[in-house]
Amino acid sequence: MLLTNNLTVNEQGHLAIGGVDTVELAREYGTPLYVMDEGRIRLACRQFKQSIDNYYGGRGIAHYASKAFCCKEMCRIIADEGLGLDVVSIGELYTAMSVNFPPERIGFHGNNKTEEELRYALECSLGHIIVDNLTELETLDRIAGEMGKNARIMFRVKPGIEAHTHEFIMTGQIDSKFGLALENGEAMGAVKRALAMKNVTLGGLHCHIGSQIFDIDPFVMAADVMLHFIADIKEQTGYEVEELNLGGGFGIKYTEQENPSAYDLYMQKVSDKVKNTCAALKLKQPYIVIEPGRSIAGPAGITLYQVGSVKKIPGVRTYVSIDGGMTDNPRYALYQSRYEAVCANKADAPRDQTVTIAGKCCESGDLIGKDMPLQQVEPGDILAVLATGAYNYSMASHYNRIPNPAVVMVKDGTSRLIIKRETPEDLIRCDL
Amino acid sequence: MLLTNNLTVNEQGHLAIGGVDTVELAREYGTPLYVMDEGRIRLACRQFKQSIDNYYGGRGIAHYASKAFCCKEMCRIIADEGLGLDVVSIGELYTAMSVNFPPERIGFHGNNKTEEELRYALECSLGHIIVDNLTELETLDRIAGEMGKNARIMFRVKPGIEAHTHEFIMTGQIDSKFGLALENGEAMGAVKRALAMKNVTLGGLHCHIGSQIFDIDPFVMAADVMLHFIADIKEQTGYEVEELNLGGGFGIKYTEQENPSAYDLYMQKVSDKVKNTCAALKLKQPYIVIEPGRSIAGPAGITLYQVGSVKKIPGVRTYVSIDGGMTDNPRYALYQSRYEAVCANKADAPRDQTVTIAGKCCESGDLIGKDMPLQQVEPGDILAVLATGAYNYSMASHYNRIPNPAVVMVKDGTSRLIIKRETPEDLIRCDL
Repeated sequence: MLLTNNLTVNEQGHLAIGGVDTVELAREYGTPLYVMDEGRIRLACRQFKQSIDNYYGGRGIAHYASKAFCCKEMCRIIADEGLGLDVVSIGELYTAMSVNFPPERIGFHGNNKTEEELRYALECSLGHIIVDNLTELETLDRIAGEMGKNARIMFRVKPGIEAHTHEFIMTGQIDSKFGLALENGEAMGAVKRALAMKNVTLGGLHCHIGSQIFDIDPFVMAADVMLHFIADIKEQTGYEVEELNLGGGFGIKYTEQENPSAYDLYMQKVSDKVKNTCAALKLKQPYIVIEPGRSIAGPAGITLYQVGSVKKIPGVRTYVSIDGGMTDNPRYALYQSRYEAVCANKADAPRDQTVTIAGKCCESGDLIGKDMPLQQVEPGDILAVLATGAYNYSMASHYNRIPNPAVVMVKDGTSRLIIKRETPEDLIRCDL
Repeated sequence: MLLTNNLTVNEQGHLAIGGVDTVELAREYGTPLYVMDEGRIRLACRQFKQSIDNYYGGRGIAHYASKAFCCKEMCRIIADEGLGLDVVSIGELYTAMSVNFPPERIGFHGNNKTEEELRYALECSLGHIIVDNLTELETLDRIAGEMGKNARIMFRVKPGIEAHTHEFIMTGQIDSKFGLALENGEAMGAVKRALAMKNVTLGGLHCHIGSQIFDIDPFVMAADVMLHFIADIKEQTGYEVEELNLGGGFGIKYTEQENPSAYDLYMQKVSDKVKNTCAALKLKQPYIVIEPGRSIAGPAGITLYQVGSVKKIPGVRTYVSIDGGMTDNPRYALYQSRYEAVCANKADAPRDQTVTIAGKCCESGDLIGKDMPLQQVEPGDILAVLATGAYNYSMASHYNRIPNPAVVMVKDGTSRLIIKRETPEDLIRCDL
């Protein structure tokens, strides 16, 4: 029921995370409250690093996809673990630079970077700007020239692999807003154009096949497609691409029904394919980048709420209303995502009823989930929703002018605030 | 193509709103930019007021549902027009109070108000707190007693009417997180409990049957159901409820295919029903409250973007990427909502291609819409998305740490900033 082994039930029968009593956390910091476990974050970082060490001789790096959960403290931890960072906006890059994240380990993504963003990325001398399209390539070459800089780039390529997941979080196929198509020569054209440019250096290629993927095969297939493209480039231009960014998309366990593969198995199979294909195509084995986001932040986080009303509608449904909802976790509203919930102060009791957990927004679709097993809860109880470390804080809105919750980091039995709770004053600070 | 007559095409062939050139607005204030037309907002306010005057002898009031678009300036305009305000959180109420909105014209809604919110509402001496459930009723009575206050309340009742609209924005039926059911005696029980309380005064009843409704009949049916409940209460308790809040949900024209009824027709039919049913049931005609939100703010607003890349994928689709997206307008991602788009600097050209408008978020589902007619656009063009005045700014997120756009108000050919554009510094202000 608790998904990950950093979650336990303590002697008081309360849910604990990283050795800290969640009921105490709710009392100390208030609700709703995001709680992140530093130990679990660092463990995931090390598992990715070790899998590259073990299966690919350490010739690669994991870049944390900060869109999953970005704040100053998260950037500090990722830097400290020696990982790189994938950013997708001026805001994420600004966050990273504000804690002196090593810019050479940052890649800047996005299908439509603004000129302001490209200039800022060049000022920061990032490791790579991952160029999405030809318009961006031309703009970047011009801006870099104006700034007297050389832009080190990768191209985002659509490998034509379709990972089987929710339609809305599926990428990689030709019908995508992201990247350059292989089939119609678009990607090859961009490579040749870049190689002819003065202010741009082609450092590598990038692909990303989707999100919350459980099957390893599509990753292996994508690596194979990309290596064949590298071979084609070598044949047509003589230039051998030395760095291959295979993106992210590794699935995590949101519910008991999901069983993601170990990172190790992913890296083992992908490494085997890369080594074999390189041998067959007479290529040097490229430096590999992977971009885990959800798989680092997701399982490390939970959200704590206080239960308000419990509405039993006989023969219909039981609604448990909480003091947060789609403003702090829009994933049910967006994707009908499923979560596990636990009554934090009754965590040792059986989850013997089925409820719908409703948020406090004035919107019927504001639910955390339907038909979820839960303990017998009453107003005032603390509810924990699990595996909310990714795409919850980062997707939070101010709908209904509800302030964003605080974020607390726990570590070895202690807790500290890492993002302050917003106040009503914060909400009107831009109003004139 | 332009939906409302406050949108015009000027001599330069540019889209204008409230007499102001949108291309100039984009240049002056930057993009993405929300633009609201004060004239259109005030016109809608007056139409609601006049319909109550014309058909119900002025014995009622429209409360603007501020969740549609809430900021200090909007609250000032609504106060100035003599309307009331429907708020649903401490943040919306704080915004209203910060510009001295008359508290007696404010109603506080929500299925799960926190104790902090209830205390604040009592401190402000609001017109009504609309009580959702029995737990809240007991809490409110206790808190009001502690504070030496008397809470003037309405009850939110589920009239059992199901308006035909998107499942996720449908309320009123018994399977809802909102309100008290009629069928099982829950609502009657709450009324009797309230009448016995010392610190609570029952001022009226409230219902809300859904959102973006085009059909007038369900509103009329709901009024009838509520009046029969008022008669039942009178019969069982001798107490005659004097105020009836019929909620909102009036549909607006998002695309050329939609044709909402005039407000007048709504008020005419509802007034007739109220008068006839009251006569038949020997009731006094109640004071009526209606709660338009979308219908006041929605048609008054547009969003301006700059076009980045235009990606023509032969035989598949043309993606037009803009410098905003689901962070400033999540309604396609949430509800697959449809909009009209116009190239602001080519507004006099025919919309002779079909495109998918993609946002700049790192998410495939980040679209403004699929298969939309549009002029031949190029990078650098200004794109206007229409009827975005409601549930766009108010639902905006910081996903990808993208700053929220500015909001500009236009009036009679002039413009003024009403919400400042966020900066990257704003995004990290709560980070520790």
